[in-house]
Amino acid sequence: MKKRVGVAILGLGVVGGGTYKTLVDHREFYLKTQNVDIVVESVLDKNTARLKELGVPDECIAKSIAEVVANPAIDIVIETIGGVGVAKEFVMMALKEGKSVVTANKEMISKCSHELERIARRNACGLYYEASCVGGVPIIRTLLDGVQANHITEMLGIVNGTTNYILTKMAQEGADYQTALKEAQRLGYAEFDPTNDVEGFDSTYKLSILSSMAFHTKVPYTKVHREGISAVDSKDIEIGREFGYTLKLLAIGKNSDKGVEVRVHPTFIPSSHPLASVNDSFNAVYLRGDAVDDIMLYGRGAGAFPTASAVVSDVIYAATHSEIKYSTFKNTATADSDVKFISDFESAYYVRLLVDDKAGVLAKVSGIFGKCGISIVKLTQKEKAAGEERVPLIIITHKTSENKMKNAVAKINASGLGCVESVIRVEA
Amino acid sequence: MKKRVGVAILGLGVVGGGTYKTLVDHREFYLKTQNVDIVVESVLDKNTARLKELGVPDECIAKSIAEVVANPAIDIVIETIGGVGVAKEFVMMALKEGKSVVTANKEMISKCSHELERIARRNACGLYYEASCVGGVPIIRTLLDGVQANHITEMLGIVNGTTNYILTKMAQEGADYQTALKEAQRLGYAEFDPTNDVEGFDSTYKLSILSSMAFHTKVPYTKVHREGISAVDSKDIEIGREFGYTLKLLAIGKNSDKGVEVRVHPTFIPSSHPLASVNDSFNAVYLRGDAVDDIMLYGRGAGAFPTASAVVSDVIYAATHSEIKYSTFKNTATADSDVKFISDFESAYYVRLLVDDKAGVLAKVSGIFGKCGISIVKLTQKEKAAGEERVPLIIITHKTSENKMKNAVAKINASGLGCVESVIRVEA
Repeated sequence: MKKRVGVAILGLGVVGGGTYKTLVDHREFYLKTQNVDIVVESVLDKNTARLKELGVPDECIAKSIAEVVANPAIDIVIETIGGVGVAKEFVMMALKEGKSVVTANKEMISKCSHELERIARRNACGLYYEASCVGGVPIIRTLLDGVQANHITEMLGIVNGTTNYILTKMAQEGADYQTALKEAQRLGYAEFDPTNDVEGFDSTYKLSILSSMAFHTKVPYTKVHREGISAVDSKDIEIGREFGYTLKLLAIGKNSDKGVEVRVHPTFIPSSHPLASVNDSFNAVYLRGDAVDDIMLYGRGAGAFPTASAVVSDVIYAATHSEIKYSTFKNTATADSDVKFISDFESAYYVRLLVDDKAGVLAKVSGIFGKCGISIVKLTQKEKAAGEERVPLIIITHKTSENKMKNAVAKINASGLGCVESVIRVEA
Repeated sequence: MKKRVGVAILGLGVVGGGTYKTLVDHREFYLKTQNVDIVVESVLDKNTARLKELGVPDECIAKSIAEVVANPAIDIVIETIGGVGVAKEFVMMALKEGKSVVTANKEMISKCSHELERIARRNACGLYYEASCVGGVPIIRTLLDGVQANHITEMLGIVNGTTNYILTKMAQEGADYQTALKEAQRLGYAEFDPTNDVEGFDSTYKLSILSSMAFHTKVPYTKVHREGISAVDSKDIEIGREFGYTLKLLAIGKNSDKGVEVRVHPTFIPSSHPLASVNDSFNAVYLRGDAVDDIMLYGRGAGAFPTASAVVSDVIYAATHSEIKYSTFKNTATADSDVKFISDFESAYYVRLLVDDKAGVLAKVSGIFGKCGISIVKLTQKEKAAGEERVPLIIITHKTSENKMKNAVAKINASGLGCVESVIRVEA
């Protein structure tokens, strides 16, 4: 027996348009392979030119959200508007009418999943958001149904295509940040106001969603330590490479007896690490589980069709499974009171300094690190730059705490020996 | 309401033992995160020392398969015996009693899934085999529930850990095949009789399972073109690297209007390809879908706990979903009559020859390729080896057919100009 499922699409932007085309083009294919007839009943978008461009038939164009949620032929509502305002309002209306929702909206899910899931549960309908994280890569499905046998202890993700594109350009062409950003904007990889991507907000939302699922505990995005890439100097990318490191904006989640640690910042990883070869706008998530050990999922983190792939996979899943899986954690506005979040987290460091070219300076600088309780793995003096009096010094440290490093940096800057030019965390 | 699910484990080998420990150690964790109490009711293995080593309580030791299948407290039977004989017999008994089966047995699934699935359908129980392919990597879950929105057009997999370990050693240390094999055997990565792995049979079974699911059509393992790695010369690995290629034993599946193409053979891929950095006993599967574009899953393809992760994920899935997803294709003993399998497949080639060191030989050799309809991308003459009269010649061709290449090789060997030392396919 074939099943018929009616869907509505709210918002025909890049992802909404890709979703519409994917559903229309694949209708026969899903009927044949999934035994389900997915029919686009209704599309809501104010932009009539866009509706026309995509060839949406007149009878499928909705006049209002009220019309969509009142339509009994619609079982699943796809939200591809984005942001929290209207999108959230429409999603709540759909859920209240018992319609399952599939969304690509990371900001809304990261900020409001506790409210939305409560309404979904009350109305016995589903809330699906595979497309909110890492585009077409089925990372949420994997966390729910692929590695759920594991305690996940670690997650390292390249979850933002814009920043990965910029860092790849800087690494491959030696471009500085501004030049690479402009190129990314020209190609449509970065927005006119790139803040959301380059300052790490986008990665923060995704890390909040993914680490909540991976660690079975609510991880509010406000708990994520966030640093963007706008201050990255291509000089460090080049020097890092000589030391066998590649620079990536990583979303890092760790879960141990000591607590949960979540942070987004530029990070050096060994160039032999599988994440190091994830280039351009590609994304990847590396997971460590207590049974499965290391696992990585790689693919396109954005784009009309890759993201539509995730949206439609959720639609098919919702259409062919009667059990609704809600969060595997207590989905509340804030974190559980018994969960400890680590803020003074530990990591190894790459530190670049400019110091006076005098005998004894190296000993004094390493002495300051030692007094601050930081142990040095490697100390390398580099060639002086033309016209520069001071010599660059690169220090790689053992694992140490955030606070100890801050202390050491302040002491060196106050010592009169030189100054710290960059501090970059290193993950193994 | 917590759900209670009783399981039996048949066979306490490496994977069975890992599964037992994972289930026992994680019982509370699954109760908390998955809302299901998974209880090991029964374990069947003749090896009493092994039962003792794992600490299986006396009341859980089954005396016979009859006892296991008659036990109403058992809902799911885990088969980790391997091979087709006893394993298949036991699985059939369990399915006939309406017990769902979770198995890690690629040979049985590849050869007998059509029979087993028929029995499962008839008895309304499930047949799950995530662990049969690529260890802990949830590739089957991904094909079923993660990228099911896509027409999958291509699959490139490193699906055997033994051969990938051997090829990695040969590449990194310049070791010859026999030396690398012996090292793999010493470390337990290769069996005493390594035929099943090194001659590609294992990869063939996995490709048959995965391509059937990816292409929604039965791909019998007998349709897979198979070549192993025992004839690989480390010289070619080294020369390939100079040309920017890395050698891997790839399981390749392609699906287009022209037909289905499935093959397992040593393959050069560009060293920048994400699969090229999958080293040692790690495995990975690269998929191309019409919406999601390129996607890769990477992880441990074997080992007690990674494979147990897949087994237990299937157990949890079976315990928490009431819909049973059977194959998305007509699961029969042979391929559908309307599916065309391509045997004269096309690929680019790397050819190494030893030719006489005389003027005009290069022109004559490339003339033979031209006459055979093969177009050359690059022709490079290498230094003569010490004590060798003839010069090595490396030719990289455009895409051409299997038959044209065989024809060209025969013509050159018969020409008196020299001889073809190796022919390796190149995938982009």
